[in-house]
Amino acid sequence: MTCPPLPLVMIEPLVRAALLEDLGRAGDLTTDAIVPAALKAQAVLAARQPGVVAGLDLAICAFRLIEPELRIRVIKSDGEKLNPGDEIALIEGPARGLLTAERVALNFLGHLSGIATATAGIVEQLADYKAKVVDTRKTTPGLRAVQKHAVKLGGGANHRFGLDDAILIKDNHIVAAGDLQTAVARARAYAGHLVKIEVEVDTLDQLASALAIGVEAVLLDNMTTSQLREAVALTKGSAITEASGRITPDTVAEVAATGVDLISVGWLTHSARVLDIGLDYLG
Amino acid sequence: MTCPPLPLVMIEPLVRAALLEDLGRAGDLTTDAIVPAALKAQAVLAARQPGVVAGLDLAICAFRLIEPELRIRVIKSDGEKLNPGDEIALIEGPARGLLTAERVALNFLGHLSGIATATAGIVEQLADYKAKVVDTRKTTPGLRAVQKHAVKLGGGANHRFGLDDAILIKDNHIVAAGDLQTAVARARAYAGHLVKIEVEVDTLDQLASALAIGVEAVLLDNMTTSQLREAVALTKGSAITEASGRITPDTVAEVAATGVDLISVGWLTHSARVLDIGLDYLG
Amino acid sequence: MTCPPLPLVMIEPLVRAALLEDLGRAGDLTTDAIVPAALKAQAVLAARQPGVVAGLDLAICAFRLIEPELRIRVIKSDGEKLNPGDEIALIEGPARGLLTAERVALNFLGHLSGIATATAGIVEQLADYKAKVVDTRKTTPGLRAVQKHAVKLGGGANHRFGLDDAILIKDNHIVAAGDLQTAVARARAYAGHLVKIEVEVDTLDQLASALAIGVEAVLLDNMTTSQLREAVALTKGSAITEASGRITPDTVAEVAATGVDLISVGWLTHSARVLDIGLDYLG
Amino acid sequence: MTCPPLPLVMIEPLVRAALLEDLGRAGDLTTDAIVPAALKAQAVLAARQPGVVAGLDLAICAFRLIEPELRIRVIKSDGEKLNPGDEIALIEGPARGLLTAERVALNFLGHLSGIATATAGIVEQLADYKAKVVDTRKTTPGLRAVQKHAVKLGGGANHRFGLDDAILIKDNHIVAAGDLQTAVARARAYAGHLVKIEVEVDTLDQLASALAIGVEAVLLDNMTTSQLREAVALTKGSAITEASGRITPDTVAEVAATGVDLISVGWLTHSARVLDIGLDYLG
Amino acid sequence: MTCPPLPLVMIEPLVRAALLEDLGRAGDLTTDAIVPAALKAQAVLAARQPGVVAGLDLAICAFRLIEPELRIRVIKSDGEKLNPGDEIALIEGPARGLLTAERVALNFLGHLSGIATATAGIVEQLADYKAKVVDTRKTTPGLRAVQKHAVKLGGGANHRFGLDDAILIKDNHIVAAGDLQTAVARARAYAGHLVKIEVEVDTLDQLASALAIGVEAVLLDNMTTSQLREAVALTKGSAITEASGRITPDTVAEVAATGVDLISVGWLTHSARVLDIGLDYLG
Amino acid sequence: MTCPPLPLVMIEPLVRAALLEDLGRAGDLTTDAIVPAALKAQAVLAARQPGVVAGLDLAICAFRLIEPELRIRVIKSDGEKLNPGDEIALIEGPARGLLTAERVALNFLGHLSGIATATAGIVEQLADYKAKVVDTRKTTPGLRAVQKHAVKLGGGANHRFGLDDAILIKDNHIVAAGDLQTAVARARAYAGHLVKIEVEVDTLDQLASALAIGVEAVLLDNMTTSQLREAVALTKGSAITEASGRITPDTVAEVAATGVDLISVGWLTHSARVLDIGLDYLG
Repeated sequence: MTCPPLPLVMIEPLVRAALLEDLGRAGDLTTDAIVPAALKAQAVLAARQPGVVAGLDLAICAFRLIEPELRIRVIKSDGEKLNPGDEIALIEGPARGLLTAERVALNFLGHLSGIATATAGIVEQLADYKAKVVDTRKTTPGLRAVQKHAVKLGGGANHRFGLDDAILIKDNHIVAAGDLQTAVARARAYAGHLVKIEVEVDTLDQLASALAIGVEAVLLDNMTTSQLREAVALTKGSAITEASGRITPDTVAEVAATGVDLISVGWLTHSARVLDIGLDYLG
Repeated sequence: MTCPPLPLVMIEPLVRAALLEDLGRAGDLTTDAIVPAALKAQAVLAARQPGVVAGLDLAICAFRLIEPELRIRVIKSDGEKLNPGDEIALIEGPARGLLTAERVALNFLGHLSGIATATAGIVEQLADYKAKVVDTRKTTPGLRAVQKHAVKLGGGANHRFGLDDAILIKDNHIVAAGDLQTAVARARAYAGHLVKIEVEVDTLDQLASALAIGVEAVLLDNMTTSQLREAVALTKGSAITEASGRITPDTVAEVAATGVDLISVGWLTHSARVLDIGLDYLG
Repeated sequence: MTCPPLPLVMIEPLVRAALLEDLGRAGDLTTDAIVPAALKAQAVLAARQPGVVAGLDLAICAFRLIEPELRIRVIKSDGEKLNPGDEIALIEGPARGLLTAERVALNFLGHLSGIATATAGIVEQLADYKAKVVDTRKTTPGLRAVQKHAVKLGGGANHRFGLDDAILIKDNHIVAAGDLQTAVARARAYAGHLVKIEVEVDTLDQLASALAIGVEAVLLDNMTTSQLREAVALTKGSAITEASGRITPDTVAEVAATGVDLISVGWLTHSARVLDIGLDYLG
Repeated sequence: MTCPPLPLVMIEPLVRAALLEDLGRAGDLTTDAIVPAALKAQAVLAARQPGVVAGLDLAICAFRLIEPELRIRVIKSDGEKLNPGDEIALIEGPARGLLTAERVALNFLGHLSGIATATAGIVEQLADYKAKVVDTRKTTPGLRAVQKHAVKLGGGANHRFGLDDAILIKDNHIVAAGDLQTAVARARAYAGHLVKIEVEVDTLDQLASALAIGVEAVLLDNMTTSQLREAVALTKGSAITEASGRITPDTVAEVAATGVDLISVGWLTHSARVLDIGLDYLG
Repeated sequence: MTCPPLPLVMIEPLVRAALLEDLGRAGDLTTDAIVPAALKAQAVLAARQPGVVAGLDLAICAFRLIEPELRIRVIKSDGEKLNPGDEIALIEGPARGLLTAERVALNFLGHLSGIATATAGIVEQLADYKAKVVDTRKTTPGLRAVQKHAVKLGGGANHRFGLDDAILIKDNHIVAAGDLQTAVARARAYAGHLVKIEVEVDTLDQLASALAIGVEAVLLDNMTTSQLREAVALTKGSAITEASGRITPDTVAEVAATGVDLISVGWLTHSARVLDIGLDYLG
Repeated sequence: MTCPPLPLVMIEPLVRAALLEDLGRAGDLTTDAIVPAALKAQAVLAARQPGVVAGLDLAICAFRLIEPELRIRVIKSDGEKLNPGDEIALIEGPARGLLTAERVALNFLGHLSGIATATAGIVEQLADYKAKVVDTRKTTPGLRAVQKHAVKLGGGANHRFGLDDAILIKDNHIVAAGDLQTAVARARAYAGHLVKIEVEVDTLDQLASALAIGVEAVLLDNMTTSQLREAVALTKGSAITEASGRITPDTVAEVAATGVDLISVGWLTHSARVLDIGLDYLG
């Protein structure tokens, strides 16, 4: 499945803000002091680790906003696999612009490729299971759209994007409503016809109640693998089953083996390590 | 040493943006549908892991912007140590506001406490050495000010904040200038009197050249510990020595043992894991 | 069903922008020139027509941003019915602030109450049918969140809020994909598990194909009432049926009589007339 | 009379905001899932009703911001008359961009053409009278500049743009000042030499007072046509006469027949219906 | 004549931007390092030179945004005269906030008081003449509203605020139109009924033409005093006469003696010196 | 020494804001009414006084944002000397765009060239001394980056850019800390390794204390020239010496003669007069 880039109108404001954050009030003192205006240079964005590219469009946007004369040739597009040493893109033009934009470009590229790579690692572990990995709302403030896009580039799927595009009834909501029936009934009455409802359950009893009412999906929270297995059996495909709760790459395979449909991994967006991508300056 | 909070005028725009990102165009469908407007509740922000708090001011700002009637009592302030189970703050008031702001508050709190905690872990390892841990410009776009503040809360020190508040001459700048002498001379002529100059060196020969010219600090890039030891000996305190290059918590102690003044760790801001902090809803 | 207000963090930016648009670069010349600073006044927001209130929170926000000392007592809350002459809110305090904020407050209040009132008028016509009225994406640029909120206050339901929170496959998408099967298959593979899929169909044949594939909802575009009736019969509850295409208050009842589940009315947000609400200045 | 377009620097922020409002955090799910990246298409913006074009520059801006490679050929420029079926512009290029920008482009085009068309309808009714139709400050928040521009494109004239570019003394201002003389005197003393003063009068007595003092214009508020006729006679051209107060297309001609100079119609910007313009996708 | 403050909604964004510009990404390093959080202090804003206060509302806004607990007592309000040593306001509360906001507060206060003072100096020189001093569009980018407000506080009057609130036909416009008659005719046809027209004339012949056509005001550009005298005689009160062109405090009196109605002085907003106001820290 | 331009990403937002401030809600009424759309024109930016160019990049940005078809040929670049009559740039293209952007372009150009020219005047006076002129934080709110850039273009040097990029310990900080030693010790402990510390001293005794502690720079505040001479002798090069306090072009030479390293002149950014640059319209 392809995953088209986000429109420039969505990513450009992020890149502008990041550049201004780095340039401060005086711009790039070092480069401005040392590098001659007329100097041209070439550089290569290159992988130092295996992984999956993401954020290349943001990196390119950073170079272009600093120096429109930079010519950029993409070798590995967003979503492609990387081996150590692989060239991702070639950049050519005024040396100053190249050096000034470098850090911001790499910050986006490394961070988002880190998320795509972490996702791809889990996707690979899930190859023999039907379970799909999904992200959460545990994202870095300001970057939700691009982080979730990176999850897709890594082969994962997106959970809801915010509080407003799906209903997820958690334990606290049920407490507030009095019981699960009331909570689901209120949600149904309130939500538009294209809004799905998912309910978080902590026990098999709660699951049975939820299934009896009929909801689109159930979030099985912090269950053991044996509980998950029973939950899947109980559900019999009548709702989408999602396992959730501090799942990491180390535990994801055994969770998948329980037969759940989805595994949500907050770790992807809040704790994945950066992917080591560097800029090799060819002079 | 105390570390005062950043002014509200600096953090409020970040929190507003994060809330709007989560609320989307329809607000919190689930809470609005299910939780009665008049319902009051209490909740506790509590640590699930040991660590150091950071970002509590942003979390509080999130709750207050969503619901000014929420009363918040701080138990552990930014910069304080946390044991698992420790209560960080008590929140009391309208249940809807509490639930709607929860995720954004936790996203800031977990992310920044993760950075403070990672920093504190390294600081502890450095207890018997003179070396201080410093951050880098490898930060998450949009969050540099608050991430670097979290590093300070964890006991670390801040490297430069951007391209404009110090001069850091890297290998590519030297190539562009022709040689180190020219690069430093241009930087001195260009920079204001309160701007310090640091030079990146990859070899002991380069270090000798840099010291001969006289610079405020040298960044010893990707050196082995034995090279670092020689570099420290060579420098004899005539410049600040900074070790740099893919240093992680696993390697930081042996680097410190070489006698360097500073160890810069990009990992702190680009790859530290979230600290697990939860909201316990007391109803 | 209650409909909670949108969080202040969502509406305040709209109100600030509207005030600045009206104040320009010199503020309220007339009031500043003529009205003494110390003068206090009372005023009443009052309905001149029957209708439903919406936008009162935005109106109040406008008065408060201009003059925090204005005291406002709400008599009719958002979503309540209005008879001509009904008082909506009492405002008391500095006369200057009251007069300066008046127009912006009324612009929000009249526009959004107009939408709520138009919706309520249709809802009333649908009382004996199962059909619910829903809005569309044909909204006034910049005001989608508050316009759709006004539709809810009038008793209507919300269709998707944007391009990103549901999939609506239109004729052009099907042409681009080659056929309906391919289009739906691609959508299923691409969308997250909480994203519903609706397909636009122009003929009963297309409807049959869509139902055979299985989608959550079908949009019956520009069909005659007899076609709609057949479509409902054909669907037999296996998908949500939505009638669409230039439906107005004049035609909505006969459409509802066909048995469809939903009737979408773009007219609500792009062409509803303002509700006549005035400010009676009591001096 | 020609009416030049507003500078791009004024309209682009509106279009960007509208696109982001529609794209949300995930972009156009449907198109991204279904339409191949390489697919090219042609489409025509076409009138479904008679009217006057306005907002074409905003529509074009929307297509260009989403997809710079779209080529657009304008057939009917802003301000031109439309017959049903008339082609307004031809768009050619990547199908994805075309479909993603469509709704935002049409929302601007339909809304503003609706205002221009409504204005033109009134202008036609006024053909045999000297009266000109003018807009008011009863505009949709955020869109005042473009709505008032649409009124001009429809052949109308603009009243003041905000609280700061002219003085309009209303009944409440007179009450606050004590009497009309004081109010006008204060306004004269306060206003710059390029600021005109208009006074709202409700009775012929008030009109006489205003004329005695000497003001540039009088707003004859909610007068009957016979009162208006007397007011015009009384004024004898010594001030501009403006009829105002719930005037609609149904009543505008009889008002014009009284001989007033201006007729202000809030209805143009707060209640005019959208003009039905569609995008015919040619594949 | 009183001059009410600009609404907070207009000035707060300017103050926020100025504070962020000064705080950068790390806040006030010096104060945060040195001044204890609990320390309270008192300080006085005091005049070091004679002048007129302006911008006190912006200064107060700066202190409040940095530290809401600061209590501020105003002694001299905007528009009041200052003698050297006069206390303007007393500020009391947390020492940190006081010191952090100081520079931004003084920058607004000194700059705007400088403009008000320069204006007042000219107003004094014009005491025996009918001429009023007015500002121009030669303002500092971003500060037009507050600079023009300062001119009013100094006793001056405002010329138009921008390109959109009055018509000023300059020589280049006349060249473009072909002749003055055409230019004025086009302007009359284009402008709303509350828009005045002023024409720039360089010679007495041009003036005669302009008066023959009839315009609200004439700008007498770069004329000698004897030409101005003739121009006034020629005009005989049939239009407002405005002298313009590099007039400074040194030349304003002789210009006024010619009998013109207005003297526009760009110097007020582009070249007036700061007024020396300091913060006396009382500890 | 060359001084590279600030990146477009830093200056474009300033120019956009300035244009919107001037265009208001209706754009350039005069030009739109009078100047034919098809008319082409040529114009020259020309110096009316001797000076140094600064802000040409902002002026060009203003023309381009209003009318991308304007072709601009630069004759004198930022930082170059100007004689009266010198042509700075040639502009050619649509007459409307040229006239609409003129004032904003000139406002930036005149203001910033005024600062560069004032700086150059002082630099010339300092030719025979080692002292360099530096700016301060007494800048016009919103314009710090471009004003400080203009100081560099005039040959001056930049002091710190804000509260966050260097430590400057003033008298009030010392009072708050108790004594100078404590203040400096706290600053050292708090600041990063690339942050320099400067201390303000009012007397020679304080200077002696500061030198004993060891700081990078001392600000000699409001000292007489004989005190400055003693201070320089006392310092013996062990710290950078900066003279400060109401120094103007009239007094700068005698201050330089004392042997100080730096002379800070707030006057440069808060009180320098505009440089008279005009647009000669060639038709």
